[in-house]
Amino acid sequence: MSKKLAVGIDIGGTLTKVGLVDREGELFVHEDFSTVKYEDFGEYLDHLQKLVQELRGKLDFEHEIVGYGVGAPNANYYRGTIEYAANLKWKGVVPFSEEFGKRFDHPVYITNDASAAAIGEMIYGNAQNMKDFMVITLGTGLGSGIVCNGKLVYGFDSQAGELGHVVIDPNGRMTGLGRRGGLEAYVSSTGIKRTVFHLLSDSLEDSVLRNYSYNNLHGETITKAAEDGDPIAIKAFEMTGRILGEQLANFTTFSHPEAFFLLGGLAKAGEWIFEPTRRHLEGNLLPFYKGKVKLLPSGMLKKNAAILGAAALVWDHE
Amino acid sequence: MSKKLAVGIDIGGTLTKVGLVDREGELFVHEDFSTVKYEDFGEYLDHLQKLVQELRGKLDFEHEIVGYGVGAPNANYYRGTIEYAANLKWKGVVPFSEEFGKRFDHPVYITNDASAAAIGEMIYGNAQNMKDFMVITLGTGLGSGIVCNGKLVYGFDSQAGELGHVVIDPNGRMTGLGRRGGLEAYVSSTGIKRTVFHLLSDSLEDSVLRNYSYNNLHGETITKAAEDGDPIAIKAFEMTGRILGEQLANFTTFSHPEAFFLLGGLAKAGEWIFEPTRRHLEGNLLPFYKGKVKLLPSGMLKKNAAILGAAALVWDHE
Repeated sequence: MSKKLAVGIDIGGTLTKVGLVDREGELFVHEDFSTVKYEDFGEYLDHLQKLVQELRGKLDFEHEIVGYGVGAPNANYYRGTIEYAANLKWKGVVPFSEEFGKRFDHPVYITNDASAAAIGEMIYGNAQNMKDFMVITLGTGLGSGIVCNGKLVYGFDSQAGELGHVVIDPNGRMTGLGRRGGLEAYVSSTGIKRTVFHLLSDSLEDSVLRNYSYNNLHGETITKAAEDGDPIAIKAFEMTGRILGEQLANFTTFSHPEAFFLLGGLAKAGEWIFEPTRRHLEGNLLPFYKGKVKLLPSGMLKKNAAILGAAALVWDHE
Repeated sequence: MSKKLAVGIDIGGTLTKVGLVDREGELFVHEDFSTVKYEDFGEYLDHLQKLVQELRGKLDFEHEIVGYGVGAPNANYYRGTIEYAANLKWKGVVPFSEEFGKRFDHPVYITNDASAAAIGEMIYGNAQNMKDFMVITLGTGLGSGIVCNGKLVYGFDSQAGELGHVVIDPNGRMTGLGRRGGLEAYVSSTGIKRTVFHLLSDSLEDSVLRNYSYNNLHGETITKAAEDGDPIAIKAFEMTGRILGEQLANFTTFSHPEAFFLLGGLAKAGEWIFEPTRRHLEGNLLPFYKGKVKLLPSGMLKKNAAILGAAALVWDHE
């Protein structure tokens, strides 16, 4: 019998990740290539087409492609476009689905990476029996994919789920969009690094983190420092978890999710981020929500979440 | 031909409002009665049953009842219950739908009043062609009904849409739930009154509002004062609109609604509240939302919104 496979494509500013995935979420073969190398969008798609053929050639079983799912920054699900993506070389409005359709059979679905992650969570992650939940991705920024009534919330013009830009303090830290106090300036891999630097400036307490420049400080170093009992690292996780917990309690008043799932680099810190977040979420919930909202790791935390999420878009339409 | 009618029932702490409504939102006959008078829930339903018969008797055309829609505080849509409502005499969990079913034919649907208002907006208000929008009710508190993908968001346990409890300042005003900084402590009929009292305390500026006690100051008085050029009243509307606008901009990042609709006592102040709210909403929107999110009066602002919203629950299931 021919095995049905979806092609998952994650378009990042630096790399594009491509893989072949079945309905159960098994990733059979995958490869990355440089996004930046292709300034011409047509040439990019030509290369992508060739790569998909190569990947298919590596499979030693009969299979068929049922569709293509794409996660990309600033993707518009309704129009099939990528619009004014700051970290891509293709400027203005890229008619992604239209150009894609000239080279590939089968449908293509495109959305942003956090929305794709939420669909992945529903199709083959930890939300398979849930109808109301949110996925929060903690990477360079904070992304969010929101599912209500069993459907992803795209919103009026496909720009729902931008919770990283909720303003938590109008006088707070500057964000990449040039506005003050956005949540992702505090809660993300970048956010916790900024918090470490704030704490290093605020006290003279001894810390191994005083040996790192901003550009050389990575999330794993902060986690390692916390594990070794470093007071600054421990305080940074506590502050990050407090702010995230308080905001998840606020988000609960929107859609009363059954669970929040954490994904991305910062989520890999495990209980260092989960414990304070859970404590401050529960502590800030209104009485009628208490004990009813879970904080869980994404089922794709240890997998290739970007490709799996993108491929899940296809299965969501099967 | 027999006309199909829904019975809309709005259960408030003081009054219960009952009316017969057709699919187009015409309210043919309605009457209020005292909720508090009936401490026994069974006797309450007996009276309600009698009143529905009386109302039907007043109609001079052939008709049939297709269902009952109920808006009530702390209503659980999934379980058909009213749970621990602080402003009702029936304590604990009231098995509303179960008891109702013993006395009435036809299905009954129950939800909270702001959710009912959102369905009313969709069925016969100003959101008839919208799939993503929010209704914000500005009365004693701030209620919200959220529609995504054309469906009301009830959430995991029917407690979605509690945006009046979003914490905007952890050190801010105390709310009825005993927590600090909830949005409704600032933006509601009570909230603007509290703002007036804060402004009266903060300056010695002359104001007609210095002649009113807290208990005697009503929303219409503040609107009238603003119309007469009173500086405190004008500042109170500006501050209320600023906070609401800022928060609606935050809410936009959640579900990217096509429009926010305002309903309730404070919304009746017209441009005094709409103008500053719209200005601060637009001013705080992220670049990709600008010009895409409307602030509109509810289509039921000048009608019997409570009964119409409740009746709409029935038509939403037809």
